[in-house]
Amino acid sequence: HVDWDASAAEKGGYDYFMLKEIAEQPKAVADTLLGRIDASGRLTLDEVRIPEPVLREINKIVIVACGTAFHSGLIAKYAIEHWTRVPCEVELASEFRYRDPILDPRTLVVAISQSGETMDTLMALRHAREQGSKVLAICNTNGSTIPRESDAVLYTHAGPEVAVASTKAFLTQLVACYLVALYLGQVRGTKWGDEIDTVIHELSDIGRQVEQVLGTMEPVRELARSLKDKNTVLFLGRHVGYPVALEGALKLKELAYMHAEGFAAGELKHGPIALIEEDLPVVVVVPSPRGRSVLHDKIVSNIQEIRARGARTIVIAEEGDTTVLPYADHLISIPQTPTLLQPLVATVPLQVFACELATARGNEVDQPRNLAKSVTVE
Amino acid sequence: HVDWDASAAEKGGYDYFMLKEIAEQPKAVADTLLGRIDASGRLTLDEVRIPEPVLREINKIVIVACGTAFHSGLIAKYAIEHWTRVPCEVELASEFRYRDPILDPRTLVVAISQSGETMDTLMALRHAREQGSKVLAICNTNGSTIPRESDAVLYTHAGPEVAVASTKAFLTQLVACYLVALYLGQVRGTKWGDEIDTVIHELSDIGRQVEQVLGTMEPVRELARSLKDKNTVLFLGRHVGYPVALEGALKLKELAYMHAEGFAAGELKHGPIALIEEDLPVVVVVPSPRGRSVLHDKIVSNIQEIRARGARTIVIAEEGDTTVLPYADHLISIPQTPTLLQPLVATVPLQVFACELATARGNEVDQPRNLAKSVTVE
Repeated sequence: HVDWDASAAEKGGYDYFMLKEIAEQPKAVADTLLGRIDASGRLTLDEVRIPEPVLREINKIVIVACGTAFHSGLIAKYAIEHWTRVPCEVELASEFRYRDPILDPRTLVVAISQSGETMDTLMALRHAREQGSKVLAICNTNGSTIPRESDAVLYTHAGPEVAVASTKAFLTQLVACYLVALYLGQVRGTKWGDEIDTVIHELSDIGRQVEQVLGTMEPVRELARSLKDKNTVLFLGRHVGYPVALEGALKLKELAYMHAEGFAAGELKHGPIALIEEDLPVVVVVPSPRGRSVLHDKIVSNIQEIRARGARTIVIAEEGDTTVLPYADHLISIPQTPTLLQPLVATVPLQVFACELATARGNEVDQPRNLAKSVTVE
Repeated sequence: HVDWDASAAEKGGYDYFMLKEIAEQPKAVADTLLGRIDASGRLTLDEVRIPEPVLREINKIVIVACGTAFHSGLIAKYAIEHWTRVPCEVELASEFRYRDPILDPRTLVVAISQSGETMDTLMALRHAREQGSKVLAICNTNGSTIPRESDAVLYTHAGPEVAVASTKAFLTQLVACYLVALYLGQVRGTKWGDEIDTVIHELSDIGRQVEQVLGTMEPVRELARSLKDKNTVLFLGRHVGYPVALEGALKLKELAYMHAEGFAAGELKHGPIALIEEDLPVVVVVPSPRGRSVLHDKIVSNIQEIRARGARTIVIAEEGDTTVLPYADHLISIPQTPTLLQPLVATVPLQVFACELATARGNEVDQPRNLAKSVTVE
């Protein structure tokens, strides 16, 4: 258990809560990992109250969430399916309940919400429980409604998040999703102790890597300021980088009120490439060349394609990935991470980018127009 | 079997192939329905060569497609799950193969491609067959690679589609998806003969309804011309109207090179509503009030929310739906259809809208920049 200090709710020297919360991410990630390994070296999620035999019988996982939390669910799908081989669907909570979803007692529904009060997500989990499904909540607010109504809960320990645009809550939701995936792998025997240890070790290193990214953001801020009069920024990614692209675009919509859209890079040539024109900024999240090289190669050729059509390419790539250098008008280097964990570091420059662009445009960063922090109506 | 006349490939008095193909939709829909009922009144898809016992054992359906065909798959999911209770996932073909999907011999993969040569979709189906899954192709081009490499095929009879932006092929893909869903329902016993008859009868009426929509498009064209200097148009929908919103936005991107994005209306308040500003055109696809009234009521309140923030609302609603009148700056009436079939008529005004806007902006309608009709590279 991690105690939150009431004074943490102040800005602590930062101009905006969002800047403070971005800076708190290394600690938030570390706090969310705290106390998850028991004396015998097994991953233990003490808040999870679904019995192991029930979890072993699960044959489908459905993640329901909204907004930024939905993006964490999209990333979780890759980890859950890769580590547990249980099929996982990710649904917008607002659509889920009305589309007659197929649920039964062997379906595990994972409901992700920072506030624990998101009405769409709450209604989705109620619907799931009525069908006899088990619900696990991933939530940042102790004792809120969503965890209270769930069969189990895994709390993120991001601490209070005040800025409307979610940053540290998102990163800790990702950590929680990876923990749930590993835990399911442990319970079902698809991940062995040493394999889980390795991932936990890698996750433990993420805080330091986020810190490193945060220390190199001045060129990103400068780039953001230079784009303040643009109308449009596009974002591309593949695999776990696709939801990162969606999240980068959402942040820019929320804060800078710019037309920003994220795409799966492979979809470009099926339509969106018509949008590419001279000097259009396009952010591309490049997967590690050390992972699936075919994915990396394909995105490098996507970068070449859009650049040939005039796009101004802003490339987020792993340190040492020299293949992207000839095609990157702006390069944002991130540390080397395991393929599945890359979103934890790749998202950070996009948060900084959106925050700085919004500031340069004179927008109110912590309180974007029309938005509420916790959406407690459907 | 429907014969295509070589001369059908000419523009036949229209300025663009796209206009001609939009006008051909009533016939294309009717042709795709032809010959699907046998003498005993059973739905028969003679090209389907997957044995019925195998189809009865299917426990998951995965639709893979790209671009506009992907949107037809998103709509198909609602019909398949509602009519057969078999869980259905829809995946971008370009992402599918690289994300380690969970497939086995009880998975039916449905590959949708107008040309039958879409490389991303072809690679996805090859991957699925390697895992032992059965593949059913929905395709518009006889003898093309995708149907040749599939276990079964259902041909759409749209006739040759020349314009890069798909219109009649999309509508016939939808019809084909409904037929596949009904056929699975028949084989698995979840839909009875009289129920299938009813839907077939409703589908048979769609051509006439599309004709009716096409006869009332002058105000839509006028509206499109009046928006030619806008940078952005947003599209909202719920349930099957959500993919319609995505398709409307894609058409506008492809043809008008405008920033257009489709959203699930329930997601608005989780971020995108920050984009709403004075006089921003927002197209809203309203579900029938005769279907699930809660869905209809929710979208009406979405319209009120965005209008209160200054949006210029362009509302596509069923004839006789008077509740939307006070909030619609522009009303586009469509005929009453069953809830699940609404996309067949609701898409049509969006095609006309995008085509006219592109023309008003001086763009080349049939050959948008950067795009190819059939994407035969990955």
